[in-house]
Amino acid sequence: MQQQQTLANNHISVDCVVFGFDGEQLCVLLVNRTAEDENSGKIYHDMKLPGSLIYTDEDLDEAAQRVLHELTGIDKIELMQFKAFGSKNRTNDAKDVQWLERAMQSRVERIVTIAYVAVVKIDRAMNKHIDANKASWVPIQDLKELAFDHNLIIKEAMKFIRMMVDLSPAILFDLLQKKFTASQLRMLYELIYGKPIDVRNFHKKILNWSFIVPTEERQTGVAHRAARYYKFDRKIYNRFREKL
Amino acid sequence: MQQQQTLANNHISVDCVVFGFDGEQLCVLLVNRTAEDENSGKIYHDMKLPGSLIYTDEDLDEAAQRVLHELTGIDKIELMQFKAFGSKNRTNDAKDVQWLERAMQSRVERIVTIAYVAVVKIDRAMNKHIDANKASWVPIQDLKELAFDHNLIIKEAMKFIRMMVDLSPAILFDLLQKKFTASQLRMLYELIYGKPIDVRNFHKKILNWSFIVPTEERQTGVAHRAARYYKFDRKIYNRFREKL
Repeated sequence: MQQQQTLANNHISVDCVVFGFDGEQLCVLLVNRTAEDENSGKIYHDMKLPGSLIYTDEDLDEAAQRVLHELTGIDKIELMQFKAFGSKNRTNDAKDVQWLERAMQSRVERIVTIAYVAVVKIDRAMNKHIDANKASWVPIQDLKELAFDHNLIIKEAMKFIRMMVDLSPAILFDLLQKKFTASQLRMLYELIYGKPIDVRNFHKKILNWSFIVPTEERQTGVAHRAARYYKFDRKIYNRFREKL
Repeated sequence: MQQQQTLANNHISVDCVVFGFDGEQLCVLLVNRTAEDENSGKIYHDMKLPGSLIYTDEDLDEAAQRVLHELTGIDKIELMQFKAFGSKNRTNDAKDVQWLERAMQSRVERIVTIAYVAVVKIDRAMNKHIDANKASWVPIQDLKELAFDHNLIIKEAMKFIRMMVDLSPAILFDLLQKKFTASQLRMLYELIYGKPIDVRNFHKKILNWSFIVPTEERQTGVAHRAARYYKFDRKIYNRFREKL
């Protein structure tokens, strides 16, 4: 498909930051990059966000969906545009420029990338879509140096997610499984805000949230005392929001 | 200055949406565009957002500050990047393309514009900076058809401002004069949300906001009963936010 399409130009790309939570770790979906360093002749392996230049016949949102699907296998998830990255220094690394010029068969100058973010649950249903040869989930805490300014893009995407949570905690429940324990919800908060949260205060807070509903089910097969499962009730949540 | 600089390319621009409130109207700062229609030979006059292509040696945020200053006279205000606009149809209007090609002396294909938004008080101090020959305040309600997709950009900027207000009402006080009446605050809310707000409920709401402090001063020279002036106390506000 890529060969039949015309690039809009060699100055505009899209990049996708897909965050996922597996119940323990907050991860980001990355693709592998393998290339040859033209100076040393050595092969190097590193990782990058799923992203690419855009085609003439597609809008930005369409390009983001297309690129994410081609590079990871993921289809039709809700991608939110959150920021454009256009520092004049973002293509300063010769390694990045060489790799991109080979991949795109086009001369590379300055590129402004329009960054998108999505949040998903990491479960079997999600991973069925992901082409494991191409893409993998990397815990935020284990991120190494990525291609281009992709570490910065992920950092800014985290800021955006924090702003979204401040605006409405509903987005958290797109990351959690349908049934979750209070500890999992707290762990997710801690991972998103990057700091420990007082257990007692947190449990008090969620007891006040009528939209977090306890179920009769408890964890099974755990060594410690089995924790209760909760679920998120969107109807109650919407009524709760209207009153604010 | 423009002639000495090199364009980064002819595909990336910045546009600035500056909203201002004069105590009665919510306005947007626009610049005039005069050009000749190549087909009919007629001169036309219309308006556009202050915006332009970016230079090689500047980052996006720098470009936004530079362009706003060159086109309106405004200097060093806080511009927030809020969205990139890159529809393949945004340069479909031949009139827009002709105008831009003449102005930039460069061939124009598809342009992605990175849009910024700012909110300011419209007062003598602000208008001292604005070059009235170049730029003018137009009430949101009186907007005509603007160049390119600038009506859409303003609409999206309004959405962004509503999200900012939902997140934190503090941004409202960047639009209001230091001292304001309860009606002015309510009018500003109505203009931002585009719908009437119940007067009694609104007054109850702001009485609960400890960070809106009544002063001893009242309006002078008004025909109706002189209303009390309030002011915004940022210190109280910050403490109020911490508790949430």
